[in-house]
Amino acid sequence: MKLRALAERLQCRLEGDGDLDIVRMSAIDHAGPGDLTFVANPRYIAQLRSTGASAVIVAATLRRPPHLRADCALLRAADPYTAFAQAVRLFAQEAAPRKGIDRLTAVAKDASIGADVAIGPFVAIDSGASIGARTIVYPNVVIGRGARIGDDCVLHSQVAIREGVVIGHRVTIQNGAVVGSDGFGFATQPDGSHLKIPQQADVVIEDDVEIGANTTIDRPAVGETRIRAGTKIDNLVQIGHGVSVGRRVLLASQVGIAGSAVIDDDVVMGGQVGVGGHLRVGRRAVAAGKTVITKSVAPGTFLTGYPGIPNREWRKASVIFRRLPELKKRVEELERLVTQLATKRPRRRAASRRR
Amino acid sequence: MKLRALAERLQCRLEGDGDLDIVRMSAIDHAGPGDLTFVANPRYIAQLRSTGASAVIVAATLRRPPHLRADCALLRAADPYTAFAQAVRLFAQEAAPRKGIDRLTAVAKDASIGADVAIGPFVAIDSGASIGARTIVYPNVVIGRGARIGDDCVLHSQVAIREGVVIGHRVTIQNGAVVGSDGFGFATQPDGSHLKIPQQADVVIEDDVEIGANTTIDRPAVGETRIRAGTKIDNLVQIGHGVSVGRRVLLASQVGIAGSAVIDDDVVMGGQVGVGGHLRVGRRAVAAGKTVITKSVAPGTFLTGYPGIPNREWRKASVIFRRLPELKKRVEELERLVTQLATKRPRRRAASRRR
Amino acid sequence: MKLRALAERLQCRLEGDGDLDIVRMSAIDHAGPGDLTFVANPRYIAQLRSTGASAVIVAATLRRPPHLRADCALLRAADPYTAFAQAVRLFAQEAAPRKGIDRLTAVAKDASIGADVAIGPFVAIDSGASIGARTIVYPNVVIGRGARIGDDCVLHSQVAIREGVVIGHRVTIQNGAVVGSDGFGFATQPDGSHLKIPQQADVVIEDDVEIGANTTIDRPAVGETRIRAGTKIDNLVQIGHGVSVGRRVLLASQVGIAGSAVIDDDVVMGGQVGVGGHLRVGRRAVAAGKTVITKSVAPGTFLTGYPGIPNREWRKASVIFRRLPELKKRVEELERLVTQLATKRPRRRAASRRR
Repeated sequence: MKLRALAERLQCRLEGDGDLDIVRMSAIDHAGPGDLTFVANPRYIAQLRSTGASAVIVAATLRRPPHLRADCALLRAADPYTAFAQAVRLFAQEAAPRKGIDRLTAVAKDASIGADVAIGPFVAIDSGASIGARTIVYPNVVIGRGARIGDDCVLHSQVAIREGVVIGHRVTIQNGAVVGSDGFGFATQPDGSHLKIPQQADVVIEDDVEIGANTTIDRPAVGETRIRAGTKIDNLVQIGHGVSVGRRVLLASQVGIAGSAVIDDDVVMGGQVGVGGHLRVGRRAVAAGKTVITKSVAPGTFLTGYPGIPNREWRKASVIFRRLPELKKRVEELERLVTQLATKRPRRRAASRRR
Repeated sequence: MKLRALAERLQCRLEGDGDLDIVRMSAIDHAGPGDLTFVANPRYIAQLRSTGASAVIVAATLRRPPHLRADCALLRAADPYTAFAQAVRLFAQEAAPRKGIDRLTAVAKDASIGADVAIGPFVAIDSGASIGARTIVYPNVVIGRGARIGDDCVLHSQVAIREGVVIGHRVTIQNGAVVGSDGFGFATQPDGSHLKIPQQADVVIEDDVEIGANTTIDRPAVGETRIRAGTKIDNLVQIGHGVSVGRRVLLASQVGIAGSAVIDDDVVMGGQVGVGGHLRVGRRAVAAGKTVITKSVAPGTFLTGYPGIPNREWRKASVIFRRLPELKKRVEELERLVTQLATKRPRRRAASRRR
Repeated sequence: MKLRALAERLQCRLEGDGDLDIVRMSAIDHAGPGDLTFVANPRYIAQLRSTGASAVIVAATLRRPPHLRADCALLRAADPYTAFAQAVRLFAQEAAPRKGIDRLTAVAKDASIGADVAIGPFVAIDSGASIGARTIVYPNVVIGRGARIGDDCVLHSQVAIREGVVIGHRVTIQNGAVVGSDGFGFATQPDGSHLKIPQQADVVIEDDVEIGANTTIDRPAVGETRIRAGTKIDNLVQIGHGVSVGRRVLLASQVGIAGSAVIDDDVVMGGQVGVGGHLRVGRRAVAAGKTVITKSVAPGTFLTGYPGIPNREWRKASVIFRRLPELKKRVEELERLVTQLATKRPRRRAASRRR
C-alpha cells in the first residue's frame, strides 16, 4: 500500500515520500525496506537511529529525531498506539479455517449449529448446545451440554466450555481456557472433611470479551459468574465462582480473583494481582502488578503493594523500607545520645530521680 | 419440595409456612418465589431487605432481620453453610454423560475398563491403563500407559493423566488439569547447560481428592509425589515434584509448592501462596493469600506476608509500613531536636569535647 | 548393574562392595535393597540413618555419616547432583509411543512429516506444518497452519502450537502448554473500549528448550517472541508477547514476564516471580521466588522482594519490618524523653522561644 493511502486510512499527517510502498508492520529493531514501524513509548525513540524501516508512526508533537535516517518518512498521529493498532489490522491476514464441520467431530444431533461456522477435527459438542453464525471452533475444543455460543466467536484449540455456559457475540477465547469449571466450594465438617457443594449455576460471558490461554473461569453453586461486555482477560487468570467483572475491564496475566468479588467497570489490573473474596473493586480503580487487594477499593484508586495501598504512599514507604537498617541505626544513635544527654547533666538526673 | 420436608432433611428449625414449595437454591440477589437462599456471611444480611426468596437458611442464633419480608420463611441451622451445601446437593441435577465408550475413542486393547463407565469421544487410553467402575471420562482426556484410575471418579474434558499415575476412588479432576508432568529437575553443568534428570517416579492421588482446572502436578525423578485423601486443590495450582500433601488440605487457586515440600494434614492456603522447596508446613497451619513461605512452619501457625510471618505481627507491621515516611520524619525531627539540645548548652559541648 | 560398573560410568569413587547389584535409583526414604540413592542437600544427611539403600551417592569430601548402615556402599562424586542425574538417566526407561501416525489423526495433505515420528490419536496438524524426524507427538496435540517443529522433539498431550510458530530440535513441551497464543495487545479508545491489535508475528523456540505443563507463550503484533537455546521453563509460566528470553535461562513455576521484556542469558528466576514490561534483566541475574521486578536489573544481581531489591538488603530490611512496632515504640519513647529533656530545663525553653 502506498504510504500516502496509509496515512489517509490511519488519519495521520505524512512527512516524507507518499509514493513509498509499505508491505507490512514491523518492530523497530526488525524493520527493513517496505516496513512501517511505530514509537509510542518514548524509551524506544533512541532505537530509531538504527531502524531500517521505510516509515515510522510517531506522536503528532514529537520533534523529528535527529538521528533518524533522512529518507525515513513519518506518519504523525494524535494517538500513535491506536494508529499502530489500526495499521496492524490493515495488514493482518485472515487465516480462518475452512468453513464447515470436520468429519472427525462429535456433534450431538440436537445441537444447533449456525451458518458459515468452521468447526475443526476432534471437537465435541454435546446435546442441546448451540453455536452462532460464523463462529470458528478450532480442533479439540469441547462444548458441554446446553452451552450457548454466540455469533462471530473464535474458540481456539483445546478450549473447554462447560455445560450450560452462555457466551455472547464476538468473543475470542485463546487455547486451553476453561469456562465453567466447578467453583472451589466446600463446607468443612466437624470431622475436618470437606463436603462438596455442587457448582451448577450460571456463567455468562458477554459480547466482545477476550479470554486468554489457559485461563479458568469458575461457576458458582447459586447466582452467577459474569464477565461483562468488552472486558479483556489475559492468560492464566483465575476468576472464582460468583465473581462479577464489569465492562471494559483489563486483567493482565496470572491475576486471581477470589469467589464473589465484584470488579466494577473500567478497572485495570497488572499481572499477578490477587483480589480477596467478597470484595468490591470500584470503577476505574487500577492495581499495579502483584498487588494484594485485601479490602474493598474506592473508585479511581491506584493501588500497589502487599497489602495494596495507594501507589504514592507505597512508593514512598518502599523507599524507606529498603533503608530500614539505616533508620534503625539512627534510632539507636538517638537513644545513645539521649541517654548521654540525660545522664551527663546532674540537674537532669536529679529531675529523673524525683519521679 | 415442601419447605417442611426440606427443614427435616437439612435438620433445620422452621420458622414460617412449611407448605411453601421450594424448587431451587438461589443467591440472595437472584432469588424469587420458590427459591431458598442462605446467609452464612454476616456481610450479606443487609441484602435480605430486597431478596425475593421464599425462604432463607440462617444461623440458629440470628435475630430475625427486621427488614426481611414478613412472608419469607427461615430455616435455622447450627451451621448455615453446611445446611446450604446440603440443600444444593438435594437440588443438584445429575447430568452425567451416557454410559458406555464412545466409538471415537482410542482405547488400548489391554486397557482395563470397569463396569458402567462413561467415556466420551476423543479420549485416548494407553496400553495397560485401568479405569474403575462408574468413572466418567469427558471428551479429549488422555490417560497414559499403565495409569490407574479408581472407581467413581470424574475426569473433565482435556485432563491429562500421565503414564503410571495412580488415582484413587471418588477423585474429581476439573478440565485441563495435568497429573504427572515431568518435574523441573535439571543438573547444571560446568558449561552452564542444564542436564535433564528424567522424571519417571510415582504420582499418587488418594481417595476423595479434587483437583482444579488447569492445575499441574509434577512427578519426581525418585520417590513420589502424593496428594493424600480428602484434599481439595483449586485451579492453576502448581504441585512440584516429590511434594507430599497431607489429608484434608485446602489449596486455593494459583498456589505454588516447590519440589520436595511437605504439607501436613489440614493445612489451608489462600490463593497465590508460594512454598519454597524442601520445607515442611505443619498440621493445621494457615497461610493467607499471597504469603511467601520461606522456612518450615510450625503446626497451627497463621502466616501472612512476604516473607510469611505470624498474621498478628504482619498486620501490626503493615500498618506501620504505610506510615514509614511519617516515622522517618519523626526520627529526623528527633535528630534535629537532640542536636539542638546537645549544642545549645555549653556544658554539653564541653563534655563532648572531652571524649 | 554392578555397583563397580556404575561407579565407573558415573566417574565416582567407590567405597564398599563393588559386586552389589543395583536395580534402580530411589529416594532416601523410599530406598530398599538394590537401590542407589543420593544426598546432594546436606539437610538430608540425617535421613541416611534409616535408609534401606544398598549404596548412596555423596560428595567427595563428605565424612562417612556415622549413623549409616555399615554395609551401605558410597559412591563419591565431585558433583553428587550431576552423578545422581546421570544415574537416573542410566536407569530411565524409554516408553516412547509406537512409531507411525495413528489412523485417528487429522493431518493436512501438505503437512511435512519427518522419518520415524510417533503421532498419537486425535492430533490435528494443519496445512503447511512440518514435523521433524523422530519427533513424538502425544494424543490431542494441535499444530497450527505452517508451524514448524524440529527433530527429536517431544510434544506431550494437549499441547497447542499455534500457526506459524517455529520450534527447534530436541525441544520438550509438557502437557497443555500453549505456544503462540495472541499477546494481550489492545489500544484503548477515547470511549474506553479496547481495540484489538492483531497478534500475528513470530514465535521462535530454539533448540534444547523445555516448556512446562500449561505454560503459555504469547506471540506479538510485530517483532518476535523468542526463547533461546537451552532454556528451561517450568509449569504455568506466562511469557508475554515480544519477550526475548536468553540462553540457558531457568524460569520456575508460575513466573510471569510481561510484554517486550528482555531476559539475558543464564538468568534464574524462582517461582511466581513477576517481571514488568519493557524491562531488561541482565545476564546471570537471579530473582528469589515471588520477587517483583519493576526496573531493569544489572547483570549478576540477586534480587528479592516487592519491589525487588538486592537480596542482602532485603533480608536485613525484612528482619526490621517484622519489628516495626517495636521501632515505632522506641521512637515514641525518644520523643517523650526529648520533650522531657527540652522542657525540664529553663534555659532550653528560653532558647526555643528566641527563635
